[in-house]
Amino acid sequence: MAGSPRRAAGRRLLLPLLCLLVQVATAILFAVFVRYNHETDAALWHWGNHSNADNEFYFRYPSFQDVHTMVFVGFGFLMAFLQRYGFSSVGFTFLLAALALQWSTLVQGFLHSFHDGHIHVGVDSMINADFCAGAVLISFGAVLGKTGPAQLLLMALLEVVLFGLNEFVLLSLLGVRDAGGSMTIHTFGAYFGLVLSRVLYRPQLEKSKHRQSSIYHSDLFAMIGTIFLWIFWPSFNSAPTTLGDGQHRTALNTYYSLSASTLSTFALSALVGGDGRLDMVHIQNAALAGGVVVGTSSEMMLTPFGALAAGFLAGTVSTLGYKFFTPVLESKFKIQDTCGVHNLHGMPGVLGALLGVLVAGLATHEAYGDGLQSVFPLVAEVQRSARSQAMYQLFGLFVTLMFASVGGSLGGLLLRLPFLDAPPDSQCYEDQMYWEVPQEEEDEAQGPLRTEELDTQA
Amino acid sequence: MAGSPRRAAGRRLLLPLLCLLVQVATAILFAVFVRYNHETDAALWHWGNHSNADNEFYFRYPSFQDVHTMVFVGFGFLMAFLQRYGFSSVGFTFLLAALALQWSTLVQGFLHSFHDGHIHVGVDSMINADFCAGAVLISFGAVLGKTGPAQLLLMALLEVVLFGLNEFVLLSLLGVRDAGGSMTIHTFGAYFGLVLSRVLYRPQLEKSKHRQSSIYHSDLFAMIGTIFLWIFWPSFNSAPTTLGDGQHRTALNTYYSLSASTLSTFALSALVGGDGRLDMVHIQNAALAGGVVVGTSSEMMLTPFGALAAGFLAGTVSTLGYKFFTPVLESKFKIQDTCGVHNLHGMPGVLGALLGVLVAGLATHEAYGDGLQSVFPLVAEVQRSARSQAMYQLFGLFVTLMFASVGGSLGGLLLRLPFLDAPPDSQCYEDQMYWEVPQEEEDEAQGPLRTEELDTQA
Amino acid sequence: MAGSPRRAAGRRLLLPLLCLLVQVATAILFAVFVRYNHETDAALWHWGNHSNADNEFYFRYPSFQDVHTMVFVGFGFLMAFLQRYGFSSVGFTFLLAALALQWSTLVQGFLHSFHDGHIHVGVDSMINADFCAGAVLISFGAVLGKTGPAQLLLMALLEVVLFGLNEFVLLSLLGVRDAGGSMTIHTFGAYFGLVLSRVLYRPQLEKSKHRQSSIYHSDLFAMIGTIFLWIFWPSFNSAPTTLGDGQHRTALNTYYSLSASTLSTFALSALVGGDGRLDMVHIQNAALAGGVVVGTSSEMMLTPFGALAAGFLAGTVSTLGYKFFTPVLESKFKIQDTCGVHNLHGMPGVLGALLGVLVAGLATHEAYGDGLQSVFPLVAEVQRSARSQAMYQLFGLFVTLMFASVGGSLGGLLLRLPFLDAPPDSQCYEDQMYWEVPQEEEDEAQGPLRTEELDTQA
Repeated sequence: MAGSPRRAAGRRLLLPLLCLLVQVATAILFAVFVRYNHETDAALWHWGNHSNADNEFYFRYPSFQDVHTMVFVGFGFLMAFLQRYGFSSVGFTFLLAALALQWSTLVQGFLHSFHDGHIHVGVDSMINADFCAGAVLISFGAVLGKTGPAQLLLMALLEVVLFGLNEFVLLSLLGVRDAGGSMTIHTFGAYFGLVLSRVLYRPQLEKSKHRQSSIYHSDLFAMIGTIFLWIFWPSFNSAPTTLGDGQHRTALNTYYSLSASTLSTFALSALVGGDGRLDMVHIQNAALAGGVVVGTSSEMMLTPFGALAAGFLAGTVSTLGYKFFTPVLESKFKIQDTCGVHNLHGMPGVLGALLGVLVAGLATHEAYGDGLQSVFPLVAEVQRSARSQAMYQLFGLFVTLMFASVGGSLGGLLLRLPFLDAPPDSQCYEDQMYWEVPQEEEDEAQGPLRTEELDTQA
Repeated sequence: MAGSPRRAAGRRLLLPLLCLLVQVATAILFAVFVRYNHETDAALWHWGNHSNADNEFYFRYPSFQDVHTMVFVGFGFLMAFLQRYGFSSVGFTFLLAALALQWSTLVQGFLHSFHDGHIHVGVDSMINADFCAGAVLISFGAVLGKTGPAQLLLMALLEVVLFGLNEFVLLSLLGVRDAGGSMTIHTFGAYFGLVLSRVLYRPQLEKSKHRQSSIYHSDLFAMIGTIFLWIFWPSFNSAPTTLGDGQHRTALNTYYSLSASTLSTFALSALVGGDGRLDMVHIQNAALAGGVVVGTSSEMMLTPFGALAAGFLAGTVSTLGYKFFTPVLESKFKIQDTCGVHNLHGMPGVLGALLGVLVAGLATHEAYGDGLQSVFPLVAEVQRSARSQAMYQLFGLFVTLMFASVGGSLGGLLLRLPFLDAPPDSQCYEDQMYWEVPQEEEDEAQGPLRTEELDTQA
Repeated sequence: MAGSPRRAAGRRLLLPLLCLLVQVATAILFAVFVRYNHETDAALWHWGNHSNADNEFYFRYPSFQDVHTMVFVGFGFLMAFLQRYGFSSVGFTFLLAALALQWSTLVQGFLHSFHDGHIHVGVDSMINADFCAGAVLISFGAVLGKTGPAQLLLMALLEVVLFGLNEFVLLSLLGVRDAGGSMTIHTFGAYFGLVLSRVLYRPQLEKSKHRQSSIYHSDLFAMIGTIFLWIFWPSFNSAPTTLGDGQHRTALNTYYSLSASTLSTFALSALVGGDGRLDMVHIQNAALAGGVVVGTSSEMMLTPFGALAAGFLAGTVSTLGYKFFTPVLESKFKIQDTCGVHNLHGMPGVLGALLGVLVAGLATHEAYGDGLQSVFPLVAEVQRSARSQAMYQLFGLFVTLMFASVGGSLGGLLLRLPFLDAPPDSQCYEDQMYWEVPQEEEDEAQGPLRTEELDTQA
């Protein structure tokens, strides 16, 4: 079942070398730079006269765990809808996220919490690192099945850096608000992945078309991902917001928005479906758009009605995108978007950014009271008007799209390096390229991978 | 694969119209009535001089998330045990719960938190809305596979209203205690569904009998539901109780009760099984009865022994119910109870209500100390004796059974409206009625749905 | 499909009788000894002048729920990788853990919280009971597929007692630190199970070899277990540590360690795999070794770098163990280790204990400040030097190995009692021995179990 000897030897070494190299480099950087912050360090915490109940851990860790579940269970299983790519979907999600969270701890640390020559870590950095991993997994969704693990590792290494830079520009330099990451996570991750997928365009991909669909049980596995993403999204958007009313309101808004996007997704899916039947692809994905679309605005005084309206719109746009826009994206724009991240993260992300522009522009001292300081500190400190904050929000979207496009292009060029062991066109969406697959299933499906196929494009 | 043109056109529009109509109506009512409460509103929260740590969010949100997981993951996958109805089980759970939580926010809000012309929402209303969704899903279990999504939406609309009224009568008018909902959720949801199923009785249902069983992997998917329900049930019962010892004791009692119902379920299942073999139906369901049976009493001073004894009894009754009573329910009472909700929610719910009568009647100042005020405020304020509280608890059970029976009858009549696109007798328990199902699986099973079949009862 | 009449009758009664006997005995002991502690008892809690926010529930319950998820979802599904043993893996996990947590509440209660003739229970005892259940499930992994439920119940009864004694010797008598249980849970559970498996050695096990592998979907079910174990392991290690910086630091260290073990597992799996392919067995298991290896030291000032290095090492050792050592374990040592617990819990557990020796020996007042009291109270109170603490840690490992070996031997002899209904060699790893299995699947697989096979070794 082996390919040509040289190729096999190369593959045997490529992924291990990359993993080990990255892990050793990261560990060295950790040794030099990363230190416990004052809430995790035994001496620092006990030096002050804190009550243990004040430790940030108790305010953030439950939210962190929900985010962690979304990243590893949610994204992993959501992408397991393909009939022969479940190992890779769940497995590479596991690998990429484990890498991204370490690497992002460093990148975000240098940009956000670098004091006295050290990066200081605690539950805040864990949340932010997982957020960055989420963006990487969104991009993974665009190229799912068409890239090997070595390519994906390089993609993650690059994307984490650009994610950190973009986030730094938005949050720290421009004073943009984006707690749940409509821009920094969803828009960035989606367009980075889509541009990258454009650069890696495969005109012969129909050779693997028969594997690019689900089977009954793979759709159920995918629903595990969907439901865990859906239930924990309120925690995702609220994990990094200010304590008290901030987290509470963000969770509530997201909860309403998601419930509305679920109803509009079912409605539209049946409406555009053949014979009024529902389409699992829509339910698995578009129902989640309500979480994306309030990523920026859910910490604001969006109102419960605003949350419902936003979710309703997002579910509608996303479902229509899956039905009508994904085919166009491939045929006209030569973008092969395996998971439809443009529909779930791209368009709803941009909508979410625009909704943030609107809600920020409408912010008043009356509506926020003393809470204005928490949500729009620069407006509360009269450094900006609400309208000016809105303009900054809009500019933040523009910056994000720039970073994503340039980054995705660079990433695409990087991933075209020939030694990276990309799957041939005829072996896309196929676990056997990278995994030992149990024998029984091979027989049931289309037989073991033949040597010729593996070598075709090697 | 289409039915008659008119029918297809009707179906294409029915579900979308219902979803959109309900969503638009709900959104308008939200715009007019629903407002952030003082813990989620930026101005209101910051107006007082609160510590952020005092925000209800930190005391309730982790419990809420566990409840949310139970509703969407637990119920959804538990019902996915049917071989060809996994999409519908998980998908319609998703749709129904997303609708119910919005609609229930309104109904419960009008009844419980309507002040100055507005409903005030926060984590408490989220928990209560999810509880109501749970009751709807219990009823769904009774009619699973025999009802279409349009019927289910109407059922949910009606049931949410009656759930709210029943709960209002019990908790607000009668001063009944029922934190974990042995009465308000389990008894109500079960008998509402059973009576409804009686009205929808299908004498020709054996035409779909071959689909009314599990296959190996569908049983494993169902176990995902079971285990998530089981592990988070302590959070379910304790989510709405008073803070401090109340939540703590409720979680502990539920934990013990569930562990005992698990042991008695395994024991009884092997005892009544053919050749001593265990039956997955029992394990998936009856092992959960320990959570139901302490729904009323787990916040009380039930004692750890009391919790074990209650769970033991519930697991026993529930397993025996599956083995011996479900067949009788169909043959004698013409109630087709797909998931056996009578065994998991009906009988254990009634038992739980009676256990609440007993434990309430035994309450003393000595056992509860100053905590009596939290558990039985009317007894602590000497407005009632403990024995009188017990009588009110018993009356609450009676009221619940009345609401459920009358409501289920009404619901059944409503769902018999001919244009609601119920599945024909030969196409029950079949995803293809309402979902695009991946082609491979159709071939493996009994071939694509034929046009004639679809039209048979149209 | 029945065996000989006498055998069938015996089997029908054995499991039920054992379950009922144990449950009744436990309930009686609960009635006599178990009482609410001062945080769960209504009168006791309200007697003091506590703020409800101070209740231990709010500091521990979210961690408990994560641990609970790991025990029931994590272990259960991780072991469901076998093609025909999913019901038993998930189901017996359910049964064993439900029993172990009750029984362990008693055993640990007598040893740790027995005052005035009563055991006092609350969220702490829930966490500790679940920890003990974890150890039992580790041992279950070593004998998975080769033992019947009655045997497993007896194993659990014995192991819980020895677990409690070993933990008491280490934590209470020797003053050893082992928050996340590298020694008390992982080393103990693994070697108990391995020695037990040695005693139950089956030279004819190859008769069931064809069932001792996974199929495509069973590997995906197993990944549900893996991922839930992985994401919640930070909560596992931090659940019982001191509040404040202790829990925070423990969670952070575990998070880093796991991310590094994931990278080294992918690297090594591809390196040693045929043709550079990844092996699901490694990913499902060895990636978790990072959680095991910091079980002792993650509450200490391990440093983020130390956590990465430890995880890296553990993933490497564990993967190499699966590849090269498991076959030797069977061929030379006659230990048939179904899940490879030696690689995931045994070796990483011992490594974790040794790492604890090292980090304890390096503890200084400077590094821990006033926090030294929380982590090493005996060192802070100058009853011991750090070096002496290290020696005690090492002795704790030795004690654990003794308890595990002697206990596993006793357990093995106990489980060889002939009436315990062990599966015959030809029917290992087969759900049909103990479960009603849906008919379709039987046909697809190797046909229904024949009477002769069942009776072969009866």
